[in-house]
Amino acid sequence: MRAASWRGCDRACAQESEIAGPALLFARQMQQRFLSELAELIRFPSVSAHSRHKEDVRLCALWLAEHLRSIGLENVAVTRTQGHPVVTANWLHASGRPTLLIYGHYDVQPPGPLSEWETSPFTPVVRGGYVYGRGASDDKGQLFVHVKAIESYLRTAGALPLNVKCVFEGEEEIGSQNLAHFLRWHPQAARADGAVISDMRILGADRPAIAESLRGALSVELEVQGQGKDLHPGNFGGAIHGPLQALCEIIAKLHDPRGRIAIPGFYEQVRELSPIERSYMARVGPTDAQILRDARAKHAWGEPGFSLYERTTIRPALTVNAIRSGDPGHSEPAVIPSKALAMLDFRLAPEQDPDAIDRLFRQFIARIAPRTVDINVRTVFSAPSVTVARNNFIVCAAAQAYRKGFNARPVFMRTGGTIPVVPLLQQTWGLPVALMGFALPDDGFHAPNERFSLASFSRGIATSIHFLHLLGTASIRTTEL
Amino acid sequence: MRAASWRGCDRACAQESEIAGPALLFARQMQQRFLSELAELIRFPSVSAHSRHKEDVRLCALWLAEHLRSIGLENVAVTRTQGHPVVTANWLHASGRPTLLIYGHYDVQPPGPLSEWETSPFTPVVRGGYVYGRGASDDKGQLFVHVKAIESYLRTAGALPLNVKCVFEGEEEIGSQNLAHFLRWHPQAARADGAVISDMRILGADRPAIAESLRGALSVELEVQGQGKDLHPGNFGGAIHGPLQALCEIIAKLHDPRGRIAIPGFYEQVRELSPIERSYMARVGPTDAQILRDARAKHAWGEPGFSLYERTTIRPALTVNAIRSGDPGHSEPAVIPSKALAMLDFRLAPEQDPDAIDRLFRQFIARIAPRTVDINVRTVFSAPSVTVARNNFIVCAAAQAYRKGFNARPVFMRTGGTIPVVPLLQQTWGLPVALMGFALPDDGFHAPNERFSLASFSRGIATSIHFLHLLGTASIRTTEL
Repeated sequence: MRAASWRGCDRACAQESEIAGPALLFARQMQQRFLSELAELIRFPSVSAHSRHKEDVRLCALWLAEHLRSIGLENVAVTRTQGHPVVTANWLHASGRPTLLIYGHYDVQPPGPLSEWETSPFTPVVRGGYVYGRGASDDKGQLFVHVKAIESYLRTAGALPLNVKCVFEGEEEIGSQNLAHFLRWHPQAARADGAVISDMRILGADRPAIAESLRGALSVELEVQGQGKDLHPGNFGGAIHGPLQALCEIIAKLHDPRGRIAIPGFYEQVRELSPIERSYMARVGPTDAQILRDARAKHAWGEPGFSLYERTTIRPALTVNAIRSGDPGHSEPAVIPSKALAMLDFRLAPEQDPDAIDRLFRQFIARIAPRTVDINVRTVFSAPSVTVARNNFIVCAAAQAYRKGFNARPVFMRTGGTIPVVPLLQQTWGLPVALMGFALPDDGFHAPNERFSLASFSRGIATSIHFLHLLGTASIRTTEL
Repeated sequence: MRAASWRGCDRACAQESEIAGPALLFARQMQQRFLSELAELIRFPSVSAHSRHKEDVRLCALWLAEHLRSIGLENVAVTRTQGHPVVTANWLHASGRPTLLIYGHYDVQPPGPLSEWETSPFTPVVRGGYVYGRGASDDKGQLFVHVKAIESYLRTAGALPLNVKCVFEGEEEIGSQNLAHFLRWHPQAARADGAVISDMRILGADRPAIAESLRGALSVELEVQGQGKDLHPGNFGGAIHGPLQALCEIIAKLHDPRGRIAIPGFYEQVRELSPIERSYMARVGPTDAQILRDARAKHAWGEPGFSLYERTTIRPALTVNAIRSGDPGHSEPAVIPSKALAMLDFRLAPEQDPDAIDRLFRQFIARIAPRTVDINVRTVFSAPSVTVARNNFIVCAAAQAYRKGFNARPVFMRTGGTIPVVPLLQQTWGLPVALMGFALPDDGFHAPNERFSLASFSRGIATSIHFLHLLGTASIRTTEL
């Protein structure tokens, strides 16, 4: 149950992966087939957030399970949860070798406005060196990198150099609500020596990076209830405080004019990074100009005194993700809607406790809310931030694998996203984790025209083959088998 | 073309409508059939704002035309416009008698969230003395009051006591954009001695009222364009000014903390009513408590120094009717949307010029807009405010008819709504107009569970029969026939 202590890191990192050669060759030869299979996977509209896609999510899980079986993984299972199923599979014949947990998610973010997609989100299209489609990079493509590495290894060597357990969930985009429960009831699925997660961006096509921190998240719904029914703005405009207006007035008070979050005490737990840490970030990280380019934004904004890379990774943020009221999608809603709802998204710096922030937010809302409307705050989900040690054996193997797969030395990067499974595996299950991304900064996670670079896909597979090989051929004490 | 000068007002108002008796009796006997026919009319989802209902609007026009033909009106026509058709019909055999234009609209407001309707908006249901359905009172029921009065008169007397022209349009809820053009090309449809419009509320079931002013309207879309694509709040939150947040911040600046509109110069053209006018309003109008009850609101809000009746009729107002961004109707849109749009609705006091307000609004937005986003303002439609003289012959006949139909003396009321055809008929076509409502304050114009009181329906028909009779039997010089 406890993670193994790693005794051969340096050796493993230095060792050539001579027997990985045939697997690498196989992966190169199969490139076109692998891409077709990834396209099949992208084709499922496995949108976990929409109940109308529940069956699509299930069909995607079944397809993925069948695929894992077809490449030689064993004990493949699609396990129902209260939400969407978890797909598990393993290969446990490398007696005396370490066990690697590979986490990924096959659910995707909703596609958003279809009018902004150049091609249909669930009809993958290859164009200019990318495969386009919702989930192409987040996370179907990155998950598939490891699946195809396993296949390449098994087909050529007849065995894997280590034990592997795959856990592919269907609820990452909605906060991984049922994964902890699943692992509690299926603890053998999480028993391993280390875990790899590929659900993040690197710095550029030739700039691999291992994530060393993730922001926490707190997602809240702020509902403003005004009068008991929708009203005609002619008949009632001027007499009551419209809930949409009240909501805007509340939201406008959440930031100060300089772009800092105005909730008292909000920054209290935020740890200031040391000058050494900040200078490393400045050296390896993206510049403000690069981040603006990736965002297709003309203007920077936000907390003074920090670079955009810092503002999006080690500093907290609050964004307004949606406002709803009235009649969605209709063109002339001449009504004062009776209620309005905003979806707010906090990203939390390392050290910030989501529950504490939730309390501060609720207190602040209670203080600033006008007495003309009723306010209701609902916490949708929260996940703590995570910092990953730079020197665990699995990070070490990941770094070495990147050097071989990308022919470039990876750097450690901070990342602003949140992956709820990371704290779960690291804190609850005590697994050392490597956060090993393959997506590019402009791949469009959660945006229209999401894509995954074909170069990243094949380099990623090669990197994963090296990674499996390095981990498997190093001398390591494992906790099971 | 010029409206007639009325020489027999006093005589008409005093005269008993002895020969209207059979028509009144007929209307009472036919009550159930009239209601079934109104239900048929409500059943059409004639939502002018939604292009997907274009055919439903047309079918509603065709049904209405056929119905007008069936009750004995002549020259029935359904005339196409650039938008939705206009239904016209007339009866012009009362030589030497005045000609009355009856305006109504058969289009309806979108039903809004279906979950808030107790019964389906386009499946009319009779419950507790009301018929429920979108358009029941606004304006199908009120339009039908006159149609059924005409039918009752024609069926019993074999002729009408005056000439009648019906103009029923299909675009009132979207600003009557094509009506002016229609009338320019079909001027005979608007040539009359006066017009009656029943598309408003009265003060209560026993408190008939003639509207003497309507507010103007200016509907604008405020679009905020931020970065060039939707962004992941984890990856980019903190670095850019999200358009939804920027939109909220702009909207929050449109009112001052006391509830007055903060646009410089906004109140400059607003005429202060005299103490006599205000005291009449206070005497006959609804109390604050009544308005709050009708709105199902717990708290008043708005411009200090004015009653809620004043705030909603003689004072301007600005309400936020909708905000849109991201993926409408979906539950977990974890994105910073690239743009956001608000639908703002100004209601303008008498004397305020919509074009001038439009300019002031645009200047103010340009001044307060943050430089981090691009702003686009689009004027959706505008209509001037209207004041109707209390002493024109048609208002006089309306007042007398109410006394007979409702057994109560009507008062003059101010109304906060906007009916674009009123300034068109009054200013452009020079017609004296009577704004003669039959809807109750809580009938739910534009709201879910819109309804029309059955008592109002039958009293309305009786009132309209008296109205036709009074106008027809008075001595009047007409301009045509």
